[in-house]
Formats: sequence, C-alpha cells, structure tokens
Amino acid sequence: MSAQPIFKKIALIGAGLIGSSIAHAARRRQLAGHIAAYIPRPETRARAESAGFADSLHGELKPALEGADLVVLATPIGAYASLAAQIAPHLASGAILSDVGSVKTVVIRDVGPHVPEGVHFVPAHPVAGTEQSGPEAGFAELFDGRWCILTPPPGTEAAAVDRLVAFWRGCGSEVEIMDPRHHDRVLAITSHVPHLIAYNIVGTAADLETVTQSEVIKYSASGFRDFTRIAASDPTMWRDIFLNNREAVLEMLGRFNEDLAALQRAVRWGDGDALFNLFTRTRAIRRSIIEAGQDTAAPNFGRSAKPGKKD
Amino acid sequence: MSAQPIFKKIALIGAGLIGSSIAHAARRRQLAGHIAAYIPRPETRARAESAGFADSLHGELKPALEGADLVVLATPIGAYASLAAQIAPHLASGAILSDVGSVKTVVIRDVGPHVPEGVHFVPAHPVAGTEQSGPEAGFAELFDGRWCILTPPPGTEAAAVDRLVAFWRGCGSEVEIMDPRHHDRVLAITSHVPHLIAYNIVGTAADLETVTQSEVIKYSASGFRDFTRIAASDPTMWRDIFLNNREAVLEMLGRFNEDLAALQRAVRWGDGDALFNLFTRTRAIRRSIIEAGQDTAAPNFGRSAKPGKKD
Repeated sequence: MSAQPIFKKIALIGAGLIGSSIAHAARRRQLAGHIAAYIPRPETRARAESAGFADSLHGELKPALEGADLVVLATPIGAYASLAAQIAPHLASGAILSDVGSVKTVVIRDVGPHVPEGVHFVPAHPVAGTEQSGPEAGFAELFDGRWCILTPPPGTEAAAVDRLVAFWRGCGSEVEIMDPRHHDRVLAITSHVPHLIAYNIVGTAADLETVTQSEVIKYSASGFRDFTRIAASDPTMWRDIFLNNREAVLEMLGRFNEDLAALQRAVRWGDGDALFNLFTRTRAIRRSIIEAGQDTAAPNFGRSAKPGKKD
Repeated sequence: MSAQPIFKKIALIGAGLIGSSIAHAARRRQLAGHIAAYIPRPETRARAESAGFADSLHGELKPALEGADLVVLATPIGAYASLAAQIAPHLASGAILSDVGSVKTVVIRDVGPHVPEGVHFVPAHPVAGTEQSGPEAGFAELFDGRWCILTPPPGTEAAAVDRLVAFWRGCGSEVEIMDPRHHDRVLAITSHVPHLIAYNIVGTAADLETVTQSEVIKYSASGFRDFTRIAASDPTMWRDIFLNNREAVLEMLGRFNEDLAALQRAVRWGDGDALFNLFTRTRAIRRSIIEAGQDTAAPNFGRSAKPGKKD
C-alpha cells in the first residue's frame, strides 16, 4: 500500500487481545506511521515487547500520547474514567479519542466529560474476539469480516468519523454507526447474556454433588465444552461489562428467563410439539449466520477430531 | 488389520449422523464382515446409497436383520419401543442388541421387555456428534478420542459386553460402563441442559422487538453464534431426548435456574467480586477439558477468520 497512512501515530492505552490485534492489523496495511502502546505494568510490557507489535512501549502516559492523532482506550471499561482524566491534558487538538469497549452508553458518560475542546470523541466497538487474553493473544486477521460499531455523540465532526471508519475498514472490518443505547441492547442479547449463561452453566456443573467434575470433563463433547470456551474469557473485562450494562442485560435476561420457564413447562408436561417447533425455528438462524459470513459452515466449527488423551 | 472382524454382520436400524458414522468407522478397521442398514423411507435410502457406507440397504426389517450378530438402534429414541417389538422375532440367539440413544433408563424400559431369551441387550451411548444430521453427515473419525458409555442391565453376559467394548474401541472410542440412571444425570448437565438453553436463547433473540434479526445475525460473532451451532441440531432427536429424560433435565435445570438467579442478583446489585470469582473459577474447567483431549486449544475453536459476505 503506497498511500499515506490514515494516522501519523496511534496510541494504544492498554494492549491485550484487542489492542494488540489493532496493532497487528494496522501494520498489515500500513494504516499508521507509528504505533505506541501504554502498558503500565512492567511484566505485561515485557510480554508486549516479545510479541513485537508496537513501535514503542511506554510505562508513562505522556510519551505514549505525544503527537498521537488517534488514541484508543483498550483496557477493561472500569478503568476508563480514571484514564480519561489522566489522558485529557496530553491530547492534541484535532486528535481522535476512541475505545474498544463492549458497552457504549457508560463509556460516553464516563469519558465524554473529560474530552477537551478540539478533540474528536468517537467511541467504537469491534465485535470480534477470542477466549484468550493478553498481549500475545492478538493477530492481524481478528477483525476480518467482523463488524465494528461506532457510536459518535451527536454533533461529532463528520470528517473525524469518516477517518475512523476508514481505519476500521483498513483493519478488515465492516463498519456500522449506531445509537449507543441501541448498541447496548443489541450486544446484551448477542454477547452479554450468552456469556452470562455460559459462565452460569459451567459454574452449575462444577458445583454438582451427584455428577463429578471428572465426568463433566470427560463427556463435555456432547455440548458442554462449547460453553466452556466462552466461559474462559477474561474475568476482569467481563465483570466490568456486567457492571456497566446492567439495565440492558437485566432486560434481556428477563426475556430469556421468561422463555426458559415456558420451555421448562413444555419439558415437564411432555409438550413435544412446542419443543419440536422451537428446535426447528432455531435452525434457520444458524443458516443465516453462515450465509452472512459470520461463522463457518464446517460441522463442529471445523474442530479437528484428534484422539484425546486419557484423563 | 488381518484379524477376524468382531461381528459377522451389523444391522443398523436407521442411519443418520451416528448410524452412518458407525458404518464408516467399522469399515476403517474392518470390524464387521457385512454392514446392513434398515432405512424405510425410499428417499433417505437413496441418500444413504449415494453416501455409500453400507454393504446392503433395506426397506424391510427382516432381510436387514438376517444373520446379524450386532443390531444397533440408531433412530430417535421415540421410535425405539415400536421398533423393538418389530425386531424381536427376527433376532438370532447370541446376537447383541444395542443402541446409540442419549438417554438410557427409558431405553431399558422401552426396549428391555421385547428382548428375546438368548439375545444380549447392551445399551450404548457414543458421546459424540455434530450439529448436522442425515446419512451423508457421518464420517469415520467422529468417535476418535470420544467416550462411549455402555449401560448393560444387571446380569448381562460379560462376554457380550466385552465384545461391544472391543467394537467401540475399534471405532476409536474410549469406553465406560455406567449405571443408566447415573448416565442420564451426567448427560442432563453435560448435554441436555446446554442444548435446552442454547435453543432457548436463540429463540429469545429471534423474538425481540427492540433488536432486529438482522442485527442478531450481524453481531453474532460476539458469542451468540456458538449457541446457534448447538441449536441447529436435529429437532426430532432432541424433542425425544427431552420427552424421555424429563426428571434429570428438570433437576439440572432447577440448579441452573437457582444459580442464574444469584448471578442476576449480582448483576443488579453490582456485586463485582461475585462476578469476578465465578468468571475466574470457570476458566479452570476449560483448561481441564483441553488437557483431557476433549476440545481444541486453538482460539475460537480454530475457526478460520475468513472475510464475511455482507448481509
């Protein structure tokens, strides 16, 4: 790519799975002249050094932010408010301040008030990830074909939004602009409640007296193992998501519980037709997801059926 | 393999994902002299013909069963009782009658009374599968490294059990002998309740008024899509499982609901420590499953991050 990079300097505030993947993806298409990462903990900084995705690594905010025309908050959401206050004095006029958080109304509430005049605040959420975390978990292809949702507050300069859209497209994403409250509802049902019930069933299985943990592990290929992947996601990140999207999560969880009560009743009373009708309806959604390129059509996600070790 | 095949003739009663996989796996190691499949519907029989896993295909039971020393029920469980009654007169003395159903107490109740003197009834459950179904969905490696649970009734001849154990080991499985009631509890938590809640959340998401189906599909990579794989499993098979393992499913679902209520309360009251503790605990189980060879360690199940089509 011989064109000018979209940003002269990107400052990543935190660089776990998502931050490091942004760096890898930006390098792949030369979207930035320089990639700096602020990582306060020395041992995490050393791991980022080995992973080798940044041009400079910093234990202090000021040098990381110096001259940056894109600053991306990429820590768990709970740290945003305090970070925004520390970052604000170092932001250059004309710079874009963005983030990657999975909740957006709270981010606008916590970060918005700190944004100086002349700085463009464009919150973002790349809807992509794996169950792994940390600076060595990132890879350039993470965002390919996935959606990135931007939630610019009303009145945000269009040119700044366009520039961030171009950046995310350069990272391989499709981009959508959305109202932050609507974003939080959509993600509550597509991501937050699914994670909550995955965490929950894994906890339930671990606590049973009548079935041993060894049995749960041995026979997990019958469905359970899929939930354990999601339930292996980063605990701090997910704690912060639930603490910060309470209203939408409780709303969607209420719907889930209502439907589950009806399903439980169908099981209790042997209502085979109700079960069959639901189980048929849900198949169509799987097909649509595959057609939309959001999952593989290969059986079992294409997992290799390699022989297992004995436990 | 130059040794004698374990069975002279296997008769598969039904041949969808599991039945056809048994045929493929038996052929791979020459575990049977002849593989017959009884498939009453002409169009399904034609599909099995194309898939080419059987030595003979039959629309009638009698010729399929003739001379069989292993007969395997491989239809949805709801059909077992009527099939067992039809099969009984054609079973040769010394033959083994088995099955592949995901519930075992009900199978013993429904099939047991029909088993003639001299026939060995050894129920089995290979704990393996994919979300696909039908005679073309099978493959020889499906059982490799997975567990097959046998639940022989008290007094079953040891030599018959040993022979079926050898067969399943030849198919690539690890084998466990278990009490049928315990089996039904173990599978309720590792398989049946996970499927029920996967079906449920996919249904909930489809029925929302505030979030469109198109949005659910676009942003499914954030967690939801994993549930849709499980919720794409065969509707008839799963209806029959829930109708026939009611007691254990309701027991485990009760525990799930109790735990979910506590988790919902933690979200409502912002109890970050409770959330963090659960989310940390569940990570360990994922690691154990990977160590036991029951899932891949690759992020996102090793799914390719191929670019998606636009919807």
